[in-house]
Amino acid sequence: MPSSKEKIINIREAKWFSNLTTAIIIIYASFLGLKTVIEMESSTIFFFYILDHFVTLYFLIELSIKIYASNSLKEFFSDRWNIFDFIIVIITLVPLENSTMAAVARLFRIFRVLRLITARPELKKIIDMLIGAIPSIIDIVILMFIIFYIYAIVGNFLFANAPSGLWTDFLVSMLTLFQILTFEGWSDIMYEGMKIHPWSWIYFVSFIVIAAFVFFNLFVAVIIGEMEKISHEGEHEEEMGKLDRILEEMQEMKKELQNLKQKE
Amino acid sequence: MPSSKEKIINIREAKWFSNLTTAIIIIYASFLGLKTVIEMESSTIFFFYILDHFVTLYFLIELSIKIYASNSLKEFFSDRWNIFDFIIVIITLVPLENSTMAAVARLFRIFRVLRLITARPELKKIIDMLIGAIPSIIDIVILMFIIFYIYAIVGNFLFANAPSGLWTDFLVSMLTLFQILTFEGWSDIMYEGMKIHPWSWIYFVSFIVIAAFVFFNLFVAVIIGEMEKISHEGEHEEEMGKLDRILEEMQEMKKELQNLKQKE
Amino acid sequence: MPSSKEKIINIREAKWFSNLTTAIIIIYASFLGLKTVIEMESSTIFFFYILDHFVTLYFLIELSIKIYASNSLKEFFSDRWNIFDFIIVIITLVPLENSTMAAVARLFRIFRVLRLITARPELKKIIDMLIGAIPSIIDIVILMFIIFYIYAIVGNFLFANAPSGLWTDFLVSMLTLFQILTFEGWSDIMYEGMKIHPWSWIYFVSFIVIAAFVFFNLFVAVIIGEMEKISHEGEHEEEMGKLDRILEEMQEMKKELQNLKQKE
Amino acid sequence: MPSSKEKIINIREAKWFSNLTTAIIIIYASFLGLKTVIEMESSTIFFFYILDHFVTLYFLIELSIKIYASNSLKEFFSDRWNIFDFIIVIITLVPLENSTMAAVARLFRIFRVLRLITARPELKKIIDMLIGAIPSIIDIVILMFIIFYIYAIVGNFLFANAPSGLWTDFLVSMLTLFQILTFEGWSDIMYEGMKIHPWSWIYFVSFIVIAAFVFFNLFVAVIIGEMEKISHEGEHEEEMGKLDRILEEMQEMKKELQNLKQKE
Repeated sequence: MPSSKEKIINIREAKWFSNLTTAIIIIYASFLGLKTVIEMESSTIFFFYILDHFVTLYFLIELSIKIYASNSLKEFFSDRWNIFDFIIVIITLVPLENSTMAAVARLFRIFRVLRLITARPELKKIIDMLIGAIPSIIDIVILMFIIFYIYAIVGNFLFANAPSGLWTDFLVSMLTLFQILTFEGWSDIMYEGMKIHPWSWIYFVSFIVIAAFVFFNLFVAVIIGEMEKISHEGEHEEEMGKLDRILEEMQEMKKELQNLKQKE
Repeated sequence: MPSSKEKIINIREAKWFSNLTTAIIIIYASFLGLKTVIEMESSTIFFFYILDHFVTLYFLIELSIKIYASNSLKEFFSDRWNIFDFIIVIITLVPLENSTMAAVARLFRIFRVLRLITARPELKKIIDMLIGAIPSIIDIVILMFIIFYIYAIVGNFLFANAPSGLWTDFLVSMLTLFQILTFEGWSDIMYEGMKIHPWSWIYFVSFIVIAAFVFFNLFVAVIIGEMEKISHEGEHEEEMGKLDRILEEMQEMKKELQNLKQKE
Repeated sequence: MPSSKEKIINIREAKWFSNLTTAIIIIYASFLGLKTVIEMESSTIFFFYILDHFVTLYFLIELSIKIYASNSLKEFFSDRWNIFDFIIVIITLVPLENSTMAAVARLFRIFRVLRLITARPELKKIIDMLIGAIPSIIDIVILMFIIFYIYAIVGNFLFANAPSGLWTDFLVSMLTLFQILTFEGWSDIMYEGMKIHPWSWIYFVSFIVIAAFVFFNLFVAVIIGEMEKISHEGEHEEEMGKLDRILEEMQEMKKELQNLKQKE
Repeated sequence: MPSSKEKIINIREAKWFSNLTTAIIIIYASFLGLKTVIEMESSTIFFFYILDHFVTLYFLIELSIKIYASNSLKEFFSDRWNIFDFIIVIITLVPLENSTMAAVARLFRIFRVLRLITARPELKKIIDMLIGAIPSIIDIVILMFIIFYIYAIVGNFLFANAPSGLWTDFLVSMLTLFQILTFEGWSDIMYEGMKIHPWSWIYFVSFIVIAAFVFFNLFVAVIIGEMEKISHEGEHEEEMGKLDRILEEMQEMKKELQNLKQKE
């Protein structure tokens, strides 16, 4: 007969439990989206009030089950996805009625959708993969920042008085350069600049070419990085190991043959 | 002397038969396109009336041949491309004269162009490949949806009263975010948002960076997935198998040598 | 002492000869570009008149040398790059003075720049590679065309009366869809469409997603195609061949060992 | 007891020294950016005056240490990154007070940020990699230029009198084509062109397709180029070498066996 703790662990591992959590999150998310489309009547408001408290309660129970099923709090918090779950549940405990915080608390409710990630192992894996891809691009991001920095200072120096106000200070210039990088309306920005300095098309074209070229290599770096992970290096080592064993066997046989010869 | 069934099977397999179908589809598609460009006179209308009925009849005959050439209806419908053909032929049987349905029926005619896919095996293969690529991206699509969901709710919360009406409810916000993802006029949307919340450029820039980064990895995932299919794993196994056989042969030879030695 | 033919062949193969051709093309191209920037005076016009006749003459001489250096006209024209050169030289023989053809003849002069490709072997190789890449994408292009075709007919059906005139007939709709594929102003086109059919955002979003997804796989197809060319298949065959030889040698040795045993 | 030269070398190699340089550059860069955002008062101006002179002095000392720590000036300048550092320090020595040069000198200050690259070895490596990628794309860049050249001349020929002034001369046409390549407002340019020549959509669509196709292959060329570097060619050679040794050993064994046989 399983103890109460074993029962709890069985519940935690059960497929129906994670499916139930997923279903509740999706229903809750749908109503959250619906709320912005439909007219709110008093009956609907009351329904949302009940739904919100139900989800809060369900999340608390689910968290309690998971903590109770762990051997210790330390073990529970050693998985960073559990910490992630814990923070989301705690943050969304703030009651909605509190007038000063109500708006922000309501907004925080949407982070409950992020719990979909912890409910689906495949999504956890993708997030881990995305986080794992960051180190391989961090230096290119720094390089990108240096390019942005220099062009922002030069752009501010050249076009500070442009009527559009896109180059009034350093931060605004950075934003404008980001806009140019997405090719969004960059020709208008260039033609405005060319009214001030006729040769400034060099500034814009060079920025697009350099930033795109660097960004491009960022792309290549990520692809190559991913490929190295799936490369067949292990296979090569395996084949070499077997070949070495064959060579050793041969040397042994040669020795035996020589023994045979000497014996006669 | 071939039986009538064998004759029908020969027709179905004949190159000229599939070429004839292809030609009829292309001619029909061209006239369908042409119809929107030229002025319609009564003679032209009559010609289209005849052409349409001829194609309907041809498709029915072609389908009959294919069904008759199969051993059973079950065998015929076991190929999903046959089901695809069948549905298209049936759907486009609705007569054009029927006044209430005429417009829709006329529109359905264009799906006949899709039969080009079944007429060309290479296209069938590409479609199968595209469908095969879906599972490897489904989780990234879910992730994309979560990102869209959160940003749509936040965007609706922040900019619901923006004069452009791009954030009035959840669905409209989703559409606006899709527009931002394509970089289409996103800077105008941002500058409108910055009039309401001066710091909201963080919202837009972070969305573009995160969504693009995730989309980017979607890309990498597909490329890597395709490559794994053509990777040389089979070759490695083949080489390892041969090496194992060599090792076995050697062990046998060693035994024989030892026999030889003991004999003497 | 080399014959006159050997001398001509030496000239054709000489590095200075191809460099001279390259230099003349670049100088000619620069002046052709310059002509559109500067004001034309009678002295400049005369200079261009001389330059044009000089280049025409030089190209004729160069072509004559190449033809004379070949063993036969057949051999000369067996290289399609020679045919390419020949056509460009012949086309640009049309005199500029002829008033009715002058404008077109002047325009044809720019094709002389294309001779840069034949003057540089690396460029020839890239063009051959680009042409070689076409078969691997032709079917995806056909698929793209089917998608465009269906969406163009549907778009024309839905929005034929849109005030912008972007959907008036089939060809215009195709052009509009191409514009949407480049994300250029597609949101304006969508919002116009949504005034006629509120749910038509499905039409636009689905077109972008499907066309981009197919286009995307076009990309992957090309990459994979290129990679297969550089893949290590040859190496695998080489290794397998050697392993087979080792196995054969072993079988022979085993037989000899058995002979030895029987002898005793 | 280390000599004074050894002490200097120790300083140059010390982690804290490169970290100090990095920190000073970042602080300096931040203030340079801040200067454009905040209102300048006399006290702030004085602070910047001091900061600027301090950084100038620090860079000179750092450069002296590096030169002194080298065995010779020749050795110091044999590393091109040292030349890069040297030029930046020298260029930014121009005093800010000099009225005629003040503006340009102030602008040159930002190149000090580039020294971040020399302070971080990872960034040096990326820059080297980017420079290394140039040869593999240079021919495609030339090809791109030929395409631009021809389309610019044709565009200028067709649309020289367009009211937007986007095709008035060769250089302006090149810039317009670059704009079209980024898809920025290309449909407006096309519709203007179609008012002059109704069939000129062929010009625009063909340019986009050809330029994108070539650009695309540029992409593939870079990816393939990078992959060849990490390909397993070395491994293949290693395996083949080992197989050859096995074969040799076998031939030897066979000889010994034959000796054995002949002896008996």
